[in-house]
Amino acid sequence: MDIAEWRKKIDELDLKLVELMNQRAAAAQEIGRLKRHSDLPIYEPEREKKIFDNVSAANRGPLPNNELIRIFERLIDVMRKLQKDEIVGADTAQGTSIANETADTEFEADVND
Amino acid sequence: MDIAEWRKKIDELDLKLVELMNQRAAAAQEIGRLKRHSDLPIYEPEREKKIFDNVSAANRGPLPNNELIRIFERLIDVMRKLQKDEIVGADTAQGTSIANETADTEFEADVND
Repeated sequence: MDIAEWRKKIDELDLKLVELMNQRAAAAQEIGRLKRHSDLPIYEPEREKKIFDNVSAANRGPLPNNELIRIFERLIDVMRKLQKDEIVGADTAQGTSIANETADTEFEADVND
Repeated sequence: MDIAEWRKKIDELDLKLVELMNQRAAAAQEIGRLKRHSDLPIYEPEREKKIFDNVSAANRGPLPNNELIRIFERLIDVMRKLQKDEIVGADTAQGTSIANETADTEFEADVND
């Protein structure tokens, strides 16, 4: 295969990645909604570590684990922001009186996908 | 579905993401090898933009395009590093006399997956 063909393959892989990332984002949003209406202790600081352990254990390369985790750190950061927008947006829509600052603080302790 | 079930779904999606990211990394490595042994004008500054256009056009949400692109920026950054290691490693293995500094400079203009 020449460079153009490999790039075509990369473009095709990227479309699959976009689809899976969006499925992951939709799941993170659902978790955000469940957390919102739940009185469970929902902050689980071990969750992020479990995600990294899960992907590291499945990794067969050529990406080294540390680089794979760098990608997932960004992925999780983006998901967290999306979930935050979801929760803050729901507050606003429902006319609750949580100030943004308070919501942000809650979010830090609250949102792990 | 409850939170545990959504997280299980996320974990499953992550395994598929790991597989696709590694396929993408392998393709980027192949491109690195082809560039190494080619005298084609291989620096194509538009390539990164094309990747972002490709994924944005395919995006159906819920991830907004700017957040999707933030993930792909990290993905491309990681791939570039992998490709660089591949090329510099090949130099060393073949005993060529390219100094690291020169190789780095070349890489900047050279490596677009």
